[in-house]
Amino acid sequence: MKICRFNDNRLGIVEGDEVLDVTAALDVLPALRYPYPVHDQLVAHLPELRTRIAALKASATRLPLARVNLLSPVANPGKIIAAPVNYVKHLQEVLDDPNLHHDNQISHIQRAGLFLKANSSLNGAAEGVTLVLPDRRTDHEIELVAVIGKTARNVKAADALDYVAGYSIGLDITIRGPEERSLRKSPDSYTVLGPWLTTADEIANPGQLAMELLINGQTRQKTSTSELILGVQALIEFGSRFYTLHPGDLIFTGTPEGVSPIEAGDQFSARIEGLGEMQVLIKPHLAN
Amino acid sequence: MKICRFNDNRLGIVEGDEVLDVTAALDVLPALRYPYPVHDQLVAHLPELRTRIAALKASATRLPLARVNLLSPVANPGKIIAAPVNYVKHLQEVLDDPNLHHDNQISHIQRAGLFLKANSSLNGAAEGVTLVLPDRRTDHEIELVAVIGKTARNVKAADALDYVAGYSIGLDITIRGPEERSLRKSPDSYTVLGPWLTTADEIANPGQLAMELLINGQTRQKTSTSELILGVQALIEFGSRFYTLHPGDLIFTGTPEGVSPIEAGDQFSARIEGLGEMQVLIKPHLAN
Repeated sequence: MKICRFNDNRLGIVEGDEVLDVTAALDVLPALRYPYPVHDQLVAHLPELRTRIAALKASATRLPLARVNLLSPVANPGKIIAAPVNYVKHLQEVLDDPNLHHDNQISHIQRAGLFLKANSSLNGAAEGVTLVLPDRRTDHEIELVAVIGKTARNVKAADALDYVAGYSIGLDITIRGPEERSLRKSPDSYTVLGPWLTTADEIANPGQLAMELLINGQTRQKTSTSELILGVQALIEFGSRFYTLHPGDLIFTGTPEGVSPIEAGDQFSARIEGLGEMQVLIKPHLAN
Repeated sequence: MKICRFNDNRLGIVEGDEVLDVTAALDVLPALRYPYPVHDQLVAHLPELRTRIAALKASATRLPLARVNLLSPVANPGKIIAAPVNYVKHLQEVLDDPNLHHDNQISHIQRAGLFLKANSSLNGAAEGVTLVLPDRRTDHEIELVAVIGKTARNVKAADALDYVAGYSIGLDITIRGPEERSLRKSPDSYTVLGPWLTTADEIANPGQLAMELLINGQTRQKTSTSELILGVQALIEFGSRFYTLHPGDLIFTGTPEGVSPIEAGDQFSARIEGLGEMQVLIKPHLAN
């Protein structure tokens, strides 16, 4: 099932070039008072939600996919985790280019560990990316994103896929420079998730997906997730040794080689096999 | 005003050694359905909340402070920001000790920038700290924490205190090692906030507060926030250039010299002038 959020928090199912409006299914999510949980309600209630969606589908309004504004399919991730330098060829391009490493020490992922991106940086495809520091080099990074489905703590790699609710395409927009990754990758809109959530039952092997990022029609990054150093399973094992993973937590699995600067007006097309394709516009910096 | 959360999400005002139960004031916070905002509702509604609390105080039940279980005064921070190496003497102790720097490059804060701690790591004083990786050196770090009160974007240092709702004491529990700070400092329970939120009107100058951490009655860290390299105002200016700060976002301002390993059974006493004192117990690792 391909589940999207669109327009003014409407819920949809994507079938071909149409969206079926199943917003009424959101009624299965409870109204809550403060404090809120540290997990995402939609993902935590996915089984009930899917049952309700199935019941609503036959009578759902159908809209052209091209006409809806896609939001992040996960609205309230508890945390956004990301893997640095997790493709061998990207590690090499960072080590080779002072504009990428900025005299920082670059370590392989087993040493560098995982980093966090701010929840406030999350956007959907239709919301685009708004440049924040136009005087600083800012790069594109396409990534496979795993969405955690169940509370996970000290999970072994062999069991890890049982804890995945589904997958999306992610853009990890990155300011180059010396600062901590969790700062340079966290401006508002610098984390794009979409175009929708493809549930895990549709992806037999997350370690064999072709991916490609085109900017203004030109290929910039192209690889397969088979080139990942730590795949989805290994990342879940690694992360869940340190902290509990909660439903809706996002794991950005890292970007392949081919990163390059972006500019206002750039039109991205990001594709991952089985997960669809999303169009994302880079918008100019807004002076305050 | 000193606002606390305690027991089973009860709201209190601390006066001397008593807590006045003003839980009914939480009625000013709206019930919400998915998706939830990226800010903290309690902090965002602080003015209305204070008015309601004032009306409830006279008839509030009074409890002995020593008998309540203190929770984090901010339950749903949008993000937990922290400043690395923000005291000169702590920078020097890290540079001097391979067990602290682990051959990582240690930069001054203007170069290193800010990092993030996972929201899932947040605990209150009564919940304590549960060790996660007992084979890894794990240290205490006491810090002044500023709680953002209003949406802040590109705020100048001179105006920054207008954006602060209040202050708390923070513990930034840290696994030593080579990985990204945002991983090593994010295990469950490794961010302690408390004992309560002291509203900003009670703290004339956050840059002149004595602070001290004692473990089992022995002083380990002792300084004044006058030793901060970047004070609260400068940190808000620095951070708000990169991302929007939302009500309830926490800024851990950095720790002074004197960090050292902790062990299960250790009893912390953390004090900051004007913000109270909190007792925090270090609990043993639980095998899974």
